[in-house]
Amino acid sequence: MIFVFTGRGKGKTTSAIGQAIRALGQNKRVLIIQFIKGPDFNTGEEKILKKLTSGFSLIQGGKGFVGIMGDKLTKSTHKKAAQETFQKAKKAIFSGKYDLIILDEVNVALSLKLVNLKEFSALLRKVPSQLDLILTGRGAPKQIIKIADLVTDFREIKHYYQRGIKAKKGREY
Amino acid sequence: MIFVFTGRGKGKTTSAIGQAIRALGQNKRVLIIQFIKGPDFNTGEEKILKKLTSGFSLIQGGKGFVGIMGDKLTKSTHKKAAQETFQKAKKAIFSGKYDLIILDEVNVALSLKLVNLKEFSALLRKVPSQLDLILTGRGAPKQIIKIADLVTDFREIKHYYQRGIKAKKGREY
Repeated sequence: MIFVFTGRGKGKTTSAIGQAIRALGQNKRVLIIQFIKGPDFNTGEEKILKKLTSGFSLIQGGKGFVGIMGDKLTKSTHKKAAQETFQKAKKAIFSGKYDLIILDEVNVALSLKLVNLKEFSALLRKVPSQLDLILTGRGAPKQIIKIADLVTDFREIKHYYQRGIKAKKGREY
Repeated sequence: MIFVFTGRGKGKTTSAIGQAIRALGQNKRVLIIQFIKGPDFNTGEEKILKKLTSGFSLIQGGKGFVGIMGDKLTKSTHKKAAQETFQKAKKAIFSGKYDLIILDEVNVALSLKLVNLKEFSALLRKVPSQLDLILTGRGAPKQIIKIADLVTDFREIKHYYQRGIKAKKGREY
């Protein structure tokens, strides 16, 4: 089953994390693969998830934000990282080792063309039926939405950053 | 800060759970108060959260689904339970014991008039500024959206239940 969590509103990644926690609680095997975030990140959720050693794995394949937030890397560096991460995702999907795989921020990687849309769509069409796959990130391409079994559009109705309030530990990371 | 996760799309409660996990990972103190779900529920996320004894508390104040899914209780039974749960929420909000409180499905309790909207709005206006409060559930009343600092509308673009696929362990609970 393919889930897409997209849109500009807050809650996409946390929603996927909540799904992971739910699945882990029912003894499912969960893998999170991060397409934008890399090993420099150490968010609150990762601290907890890393403690839940049994049944949970994490691959931090990203190199950080692309083109924003003081990003000093070239696009080709990001692209190389994303393509390696895509290969890892492909391998994991067909490994039979997981009940739930989350491809965090993959929609962003697709819309920035760090991952090839055609190749990715072809992969989605072959996902084993017993596997749940969650794709997060704003701007999910139409082709992905077409293939998905469930799509939630997280619409931002109101956000406190519009009032100049900054990201806070335990709230945004 | 008051967060509202509303709309028909999948991911509202799991998003709040993800926020709880993130906050717990940063050593924040978290309380979840369930307005619809009661002690009969034992979802995957609860199994994990109960293991994280330090910093996490759960109050299951509901009596189950209202008027659907084989509900045999009277509305006044649900109302009594919701009002007791509201009093517990009020106490917790002003206790200074928590950094994050999640009022799960409270929007549903409000729209079913199990909780008085005027009373609840008055409470929201007095929430201490250092506390994060998340209100989940479809159909959040306009008055609540007006008071909130952040609102995400979870729009259902596509859902596999439209194809007759039923709730599954580790996925829906």
